[in-house]
Amino acid sequence: MKKANQPLADRTADLLVDYIVKFQLEPGDRLPNEYELATSLEVGRSTIREAVRRLVARNILEVRQGSGTYVSSRRGVADDPLGFSFIKDTYQLTQDLFEIRLLLEPRVAAKAAQNATDEDCQRLLDLVERIEESYDLGTEDHVQLDVELHSLLTKMSGNLALDSLLPVIHQSISLINHNFSNQFMQEDSRAAHRAILEAVCDRDAVRAYDAMLRHILSVSSDFEKNQHGDSET
Amino acid sequence: MKKANQPLADRTADLLVDYIVKFQLEPGDRLPNEYELATSLEVGRSTIREAVRRLVARNILEVRQGSGTYVSSRRGVADDPLGFSFIKDTYQLTQDLFEIRLLLEPRVAAKAAQNATDEDCQRLLDLVERIEESYDLGTEDHVQLDVELHSLLTKMSGNLALDSLLPVIHQSISLINHNFSNQFMQEDSRAAHRAILEAVCDRDAVRAYDAMLRHILSVSSDFEKNQHGDSET
Repeated sequence: MKKANQPLADRTADLLVDYIVKFQLEPGDRLPNEYELATSLEVGRSTIREAVRRLVARNILEVRQGSGTYVSSRRGVADDPLGFSFIKDTYQLTQDLFEIRLLLEPRVAAKAAQNATDEDCQRLLDLVERIEESYDLGTEDHVQLDVELHSLLTKMSGNLALDSLLPVIHQSISLINHNFSNQFMQEDSRAAHRAILEAVCDRDAVRAYDAMLRHILSVSSDFEKNQHGDSET
Repeated sequence: MKKANQPLADRTADLLVDYIVKFQLEPGDRLPNEYELATSLEVGRSTIREAVRRLVARNILEVRQGSGTYVSSRRGVADDPLGFSFIKDTYQLTQDLFEIRLLLEPRVAAKAAQNATDEDCQRLLDLVERIEESYDLGTEDHVQLDVELHSLLTKMSGNLALDSLLPVIHQSISLINHNFSNQFMQEDSRAAHRAILEAVCDRDAVRAYDAMLRHILSVSSDFEKNQHGDSET
């Protein structure tokens, strides 16, 4: 009985995804309640519950206790969506992730410079300052703030696919390399972030491209040195 | 009772992932049976079943009826892992996916040329010929074969992260644009695939870079023309 129910829950989950797309629900929007969904999809409430559970597992929905079921801000992007945790050689993987950043992000910075609004620049400056503050205070906040800085630039670039992809690349690099940050690298990043910020907010696409290229080359070469240092001591 | 069981199944699923990583299980490897897993993880068999179900949903495991539970060849990469199905503007999304290919794949082709073995070249030739056959016969096989061709080049390039990422980009483009292929574009691709094959198997990295760049620019401009044609008729 329980087994026969599995495919029905899968189909119901698909119908819920169709529902979200059809009614253009945005992250944070609330779904109709269990009873309404069961009625309109013509299945039992336990099937709705099971379908919702699946979509929660896929980061498509989130259940807020006592409030209801909402479209998740994760937009269906799973933890480790590309299965990087199954790659054993994390040193090689990190270098390969930097290679991807090297190919993608200079162009992101150039397009961000072309599209930058004054509001964007205010937000960029705010993030850069908060990262510097975190360096000064010795907190770990800069890791997440750095992902946000690069995500904002990506959003400004207007490439919808990169908007999903690049945060995954950044998160993976920082997840794999928990301790990957030192005083020397932070001084480096501090100057690089300022250079990118200035170029983008001068709307100078070419300078933004070069500043980002230089930043990524420098972070990835710091990473190599750091690893070699580790193995020598 | 059932509700209280959910977090235990989640924790058990995490333990199974740790098990796969720790014992370096490869895709196609078989997991110990339910009874053994239940004993070694100290949970009930129904919890193991529920945990396995979750990992099947995440494409980490696959259950072969009457045979057992295996590590999936999908390596935990979900269907639509980056949530592209939630992006409404599919025309813009497709152009943005082509922009990503444009930035990544010329370098993939160049590295493939540097690393190509004779065996690789035999496999490339085989794929190119099967794609041409599919064009000739008017079948749809070329869509999947084209993904395989680009995946093989990516594997040859040696970038572990791109090996997970690029197939997702390719699959997304073909899923979003079901009918995106016509006689004109096929003639174009036929010549382009031959040019890439020749450059890679001459071990000419620069020529391979250029051939791939030309191929992607041409496919993406065909896509634009095709869309405009559609809206005009």
